Amino acid sequence: MAAHNEPDVLISEVGPRDGLQMARSVMSTANKKRWIREAYDAGVREIEVCSFVPPKLVPGMADAAEITSYAATLEGLTVAVLAPNLKGAQNAIAAGAHKITVPVSVSEAHNRANLNKARTDSVADIGRICALRDSLPTGERPVIEGGLSTVWGCTMEGAVSEDEVLRLCTALVEAGVDEVGLADTTGMADPAGIRRVFRAAEAEIGRARLAGARLHNPRGLGLANALAALDVGVTTFDSSLAGLGGCPFAPGASGNIVTEDLVYMFEEMGLKTGIDINRLIKIRSILKEGLPDEPLYGFIAEVGPGKGGLTLDRVAAA
Amino acid sequence: MAAHNEPDVLISEVGPRDGLQMARSVMSTANKKRWIREAYDAGVREIEVCSFVPPKLVPGMADAAEITSYAATLEGLTVAVLAPNLKGAQNAIAAGAHKITVPVSVSEAHNRANLNKARTDSVADIGRICALRDSLPTGERPVIEGGLSTVWGCTMEGAVSEDEVLRLCTALVEAGVDEVGLADTTGMADPAGIRRVFRAAEAEIGRARLAGARLHNPRGLGLANALAALDVGVTTFDSSLAGLGGCPFAPGASGNIVTEDLVYMFEEMGLKTGIDINRLIKIRSILKEGLPDEPLYGFIAEVGPGKGGLTLDRVAAA
Repeated sequence: MAAHNEPDVLISEVGPRDGLQMARSVMSTANKKRWIREAYDAGVREIEVCSFVPPKLVPGMADAAEITSYAATLEGLTVAVLAPNLKGAQNAIAAGAHKITVPVSVSEAHNRANLNKARTDSVADIGRICALRDSLPTGERPVIEGGLSTVWGCTMEGAVSEDEVLRLCTALVEAGVDEVGLADTTGMADPAGIRRVFRAAEAEIGRARLAGARLHNPRGLGLANALAALDVGVTTFDSSLAGLGGCPFAPGASGNIVTEDLVYMFEEMGLKTGIDINRLIKIRSILKEGLPDEPLYGFIAEVGPGKGGLTLDRVAAA
Repeated sequence: MAAHNEPDVLISEVGPRDGLQMARSVMSTANKKRWIREAYDAGVREIEVCSFVPPKLVPGMADAAEITSYAATLEGLTVAVLAPNLKGAQNAIAAGAHKITVPVSVSEAHNRANLNKARTDSVADIGRICALRDSLPTGERPVIEGGLSTVWGCTMEGAVSEDEVLRLCTALVEAGVDEVGLADTTGMADPAGIRRVFRAAEAEIGRARLAGARLHNPRGLGLANALAALDVGVTTFDSSLAGLGGCPFAPGASGNIVTEDLVYMFEEMGLKTGIDINRLIKIRSILKEGLPDEPLYGFIAEVGPGKGGLTLDRVAAA
């Protein structure tokens, strides 16, 4: 556990990026700022606020620069963004992002479908982004994270080779990234696979280079997978308020793991997240208002984080 | 892992008892038999088929004897039932039950609310049931399980003392039970508490006397808690098809952990359950038909156990 009042785990809220990018409608800039502000006020200290992609491809991210600049005014908040290429990274840096995640898929087919290029080209792009970082004055360099996706399986290629995962971890480190994050993009991971791959990745590139786990929940294993990752030393977790985003394939099958539920689990386990769960739950009202078509997931928001109110499992005396 | 074709984990389906007892309507005897038969055909080898309670208190269990006798015709199936007192146990034995769970709450208030008696009286009742068991010829003795409920918290008393849990484990063993099961009746457990209490209970009464984990899911931690229990050596898990039963307090907050999702998690981890998940999912149609008012929970049944069909997390190429 961390000393003093430092959190034991870092929960990185990815809803404003991963969640909104998948949403059926566009959230207003004002609502995005409210969400980011209220998450910050609830104690969240890392937020993936937007994606630097062409507005004509993703209209909901047209305000990326404004959102990034706003978030950078919140003291102590790590402003994380996603950028799929050098141009996006340049814009992210200009807007004041502290951390830039650049995605690359372990699956070649997924990388081509998602980023319209080969994995080798993605890794080369990441090398150029790291060179751009290194050209900046020391105090102005953002953290560059290589975001490995489809680590535990791909909907297009099926099973993913763990050797390929490790090879790409090393390739990303050699390209100059500060950290490598591992994402279960398709929600195919299971707890045994989570432990196996994180252990192997740590042996390959070292704990300090491992950014954390980005877990999805379409098959309901999200929190079990988070526990499995915690067990092998992962202390950074990406998640999304109300489970927004990810793979909205089926009713009841949310995308990202639900921030509120994740905070509840860790806090109940005695781990400090630094996040006030009651304030966090209240932020869902911004989503209800700003994205009326979007289903909101999560157990704790429905039941309440307190201990009262559950009905009894009455066996019936006889 | 178990040798040969023995399952690594035993999944005990409790839906026909725990699920139906909480249901808004009564399932027909014919549908109950179909459910039990089809679960058996899918590979389920322990089913809690009913509860021996007065029909005027629980009309849905009026056919307990018929259901038990029917289930006992399925070769290799452990026919488990619940009985809250000596009379219920006598009826269960007469009907041919192989295993009788007798509940007692760690929380005194819950025990009184649920069973209308003090915990000491419950333990004394269990002693009488064990004496009845011992009066039977060797080959005809059912397994008596003391079912400890509210182990991880009570809605009436709040936090539950782990010392009290251990004291009751010992009291049940001294009363003569073959096994003690630990139930998170209220869904208040977290993975750290699951590990702590199962380890302590094993130290107290030994692995051989620990029946397994009955986990509920109103706060969404059910599968994470199951993983935590597995990690400390628990290999028997109670669960319910479609998460039927338990604490239907809130929308989205199911009661028992979902059998289909639990089977999926363990099988993905490489553990044999002996259960065909596709056949298991098909049984949900009996619930849809037989209990039209009941919400059906679970992720895998929605997404499908196969690997295809999930949408991609498209980052948007630029």
